[in-house]
Amino acid sequence: MSTTENILVIGADAAGMSAAHQALREAQKQKRDVRVTAIEKMAYTSYSACGIPYWIAGDVDVVDELVARTPERHRAMGVDLRTGLTAFGLDTTTRIVSARTDSGHTEEFRYDQLVIATGGRPVTPEWACGPSGKLHGGVAAVKDLDDGHQWIDHLTRTFPSRTADRGSEGGSTASRGCVAVIGGSYIGLEMAEAAARRGYAVTVLTRSTVMSSLDPDMSGRITKALSDSGVQVIENAAVDGLELGADGWVTDVRTSDGAVFPCDLAVVAMGVRPSVDFAREAGLPTGRRGGLLPDPSGAVAPGIWAAGDCCETVQRISGETVYSPLGTHANKQGRIVGTNIVGGGQTQFGGVLGTSITRYVHAGVHLEISRTGLSTAEAAAAGIDAVSKVTEGRTASGYMPEASPIAVKIIAERGTRRLLGGQIVGGKSSAKRIDTIASALWGAQTVDDLASMDLSYAPPFATVWEIVQLAARRLADGMA
Amino acid sequence: MSTTENILVIGADAAGMSAAHQALREAQKQKRDVRVTAIEKMAYTSYSACGIPYWIAGDVDVVDELVARTPERHRAMGVDLRTGLTAFGLDTTTRIVSARTDSGHTEEFRYDQLVIATGGRPVTPEWACGPSGKLHGGVAAVKDLDDGHQWIDHLTRTFPSRTADRGSEGGSTASRGCVAVIGGSYIGLEMAEAAARRGYAVTVLTRSTVMSSLDPDMSGRITKALSDSGVQVIENAAVDGLELGADGWVTDVRTSDGAVFPCDLAVVAMGVRPSVDFAREAGLPTGRRGGLLPDPSGAVAPGIWAAGDCCETVQRISGETVYSPLGTHANKQGRIVGTNIVGGGQTQFGGVLGTSITRYVHAGVHLEISRTGLSTAEAAAAGIDAVSKVTEGRTASGYMPEASPIAVKIIAERGTRRLLGGQIVGGKSSAKRIDTIASALWGAQTVDDLASMDLSYAPPFATVWEIVQLAARRLADGMA
Repeated sequence: MSTTENILVIGADAAGMSAAHQALREAQKQKRDVRVTAIEKMAYTSYSACGIPYWIAGDVDVVDELVARTPERHRAMGVDLRTGLTAFGLDTTTRIVSARTDSGHTEEFRYDQLVIATGGRPVTPEWACGPSGKLHGGVAAVKDLDDGHQWIDHLTRTFPSRTADRGSEGGSTASRGCVAVIGGSYIGLEMAEAAARRGYAVTVLTRSTVMSSLDPDMSGRITKALSDSGVQVIENAAVDGLELGADGWVTDVRTSDGAVFPCDLAVVAMGVRPSVDFAREAGLPTGRRGGLLPDPSGAVAPGIWAAGDCCETVQRISGETVYSPLGTHANKQGRIVGTNIVGGGQTQFGGVLGTSITRYVHAGVHLEISRTGLSTAEAAAAGIDAVSKVTEGRTASGYMPEASPIAVKIIAERGTRRLLGGQIVGGKSSAKRIDTIASALWGAQTVDDLASMDLSYAPPFATVWEIVQLAARRLADGMA
Repeated sequence: MSTTENILVIGADAAGMSAAHQALREAQKQKRDVRVTAIEKMAYTSYSACGIPYWIAGDVDVVDELVARTPERHRAMGVDLRTGLTAFGLDTTTRIVSARTDSGHTEEFRYDQLVIATGGRPVTPEWACGPSGKLHGGVAAVKDLDDGHQWIDHLTRTFPSRTADRGSEGGSTASRGCVAVIGGSYIGLEMAEAAARRGYAVTVLTRSTVMSSLDPDMSGRITKALSDSGVQVIENAAVDGLELGADGWVTDVRTSDGAVFPCDLAVVAMGVRPSVDFAREAGLPTGRRGGLLPDPSGAVAPGIWAAGDCCETVQRISGETVYSPLGTHANKQGRIVGTNIVGGGQTQFGGVLGTSITRYVHAGVHLEISRTGLSTAEAAAAGIDAVSKVTEGRTASGYMPEASPIAVKIIAERGTRRLLGGQIVGGKSSAKRIDTIASALWGAQTVDDLASMDLSYAPPFATVWEIVQLAARRLADGMA
């Protein structure tokens, strides 16, 4: 115990750096001698990926604001941080990680304890890329700060109007060009807002529905609001190719039924997958969605831990293994790993509910969206007999100027009456109410608990039957 | 069972009318024959008392907007409603209620089942009233719609400036006069906002601290914000008299230490007490705070039920009996009584957490305030060993324009680590987060549950460690 323990962290974003600093704190508390080394392929650390669309939209002035902690700061706090190093090899027997510098030089790192926190990478289909594997001109994902710089560069241009007709339909002023957003989930919606706020006409193409983690009766409300605000929404659109101009720049997005949608820029927002090639090659098991499979303590193998977007995790309600790449989980999982790596496995990750939130705000439209727990489809897939109900109401007493429309869907299990999930679509001050439902879900409460609990009411903040509660009550009444 | 059952409801506001309509619904469902009669002393029914300060402030155009259901509407829905009738006698043996019309005529009502929902009435100390028992000129409470009309009448006047010096201190423009608000709790704060928005200089005088249902380290933040915005806050002020002009109109408020505070109008916002004289005289037991004491089903005696502000209730965390006059409880309790009166006692009121919320918004200040569960003082009084911590943060990611400061206090029990309460003071989008804590409290979750649960995050809505959760984590860390 008197020798220094070498903790090596691969990946210096939310999960990795939470683990690193928590391990240092825990070691100090327990008076144990650890050295924490971290390697990171990018030049920057601990940035807010979720903030990138708002930076692109113009809410954030300088990119530095998105960086929670710089490499210098991590070093000052005691982490031996090495940037520009990409891990490519792992020998679990000799406990050695091989990494390559940007210039091609190789380095080896011996560890006693390894934390894999390599995150995820955006899905980029072959048709979006040229022969070199790089995305075509005018096409980009939204994952890291380099993507953000590229988008700001793209969106500050003005393109010859290819979509003047459509632009005027929405009642908007002449647009700077057209942005096709491929993918209708969180990043897709946020990039639609960013492009619209930058003055572009926007087409969102999505495989199924917009925000398909919500049930169709809720996501349909989003589609309608987007359409009303001038965004062209193409649902059930399987994008399978791009048309390029002579200069190699994208001119159209093509769907499997042969339809083409003209654009000057295309956002690839088709989701994220775990980035764990070297770990898989080293024989670490991965799940159906390609992620590492840590146990609740964060361990994946003797002396090896994993946290964040490179992992699959457990859906707390269904008990199933899911892929839920979010900074909130990454931070919590990293902290747990950091504690356990020093302390010995005493804290556990409780799983995810699948809580998420976003918005579309532009040109007088203020639409908030959130969800938690299982959707109706997810409950059915898990073999759970679910009942649900959508209730419409107001975010504040009807006579108050603050009152906005809101729709809340509550999903519960027939028989046991336990809550399964909730979904919210509405105006200002709608979406954060999902946390009330998430809190009830976390505690395995029933639809009757949610209908009975003592929630806050005053005219500027709620109706006397708070809408979340009214929605639970209406569902409960129907189940009786 | 084939004869009609006479249900008599006294009081036609939230509790009474919830009970009445729920009894009718339940009877229809069970194919039972009931007649529901309701008597109400006012001319109007089912109004939002909580909305009155906002009506006075000018947010609500016409008083009709505050009336959820008119007498006519209740009648159309099947309730035999009689307004202008005040119950003054109850014979529990013969099951007869005596009531008096405004003109002094007496009527008797025979019941099979009685629902007492007579609400509360504002505390009006003797020094505030003339020999006739009526409040002095320029002095009024804020309880019913008549009070509201009176306040609008008062506040639309302009008084010779008595407080020019103080008005300019706050940086405000010349005021229309000065309003003294006696009482620093919810109604006091809301009337301070209403008067300030109407152009008056405002002095708030309070016995202990402003918003004393919060701990001093939280209420101090409110005092500071009010002071910064130009409201004069006088704490530890035991008001014990008024000075009147020759015309009998209030000119000053006097405190027990002899200090006088000039004013043109005085709000009496010293709380509410149960209005149950006739029921107490009939021998029904009342509690320490003067309220009826229904069991969880709502029953107070054979064939007699009670709901709403005329009742004391159970604090769910401490198990103690408290007085918590709020429309949210009244609605829930009324519904439960309405179900049980027909169905036979199968639903139960789960108690109150003490959740409440308000705001002060004026002249660039936007302050939101909420609390739930036990305060530190309440926990101590209940003999619970509590630990607590205040954590400061932001309502949205720091780089977003939406980000406002917010302080969250979490209170938990040492040893068991169960949550006891939470308090929030902050800017826009702060206060409704109390429901996340209330939901966890309702389910008897621990501080670790709150720190671990999957709450929503996106940059416009939260920091990546949602502030409520960060506050729980910081407290949990300190308890370890």
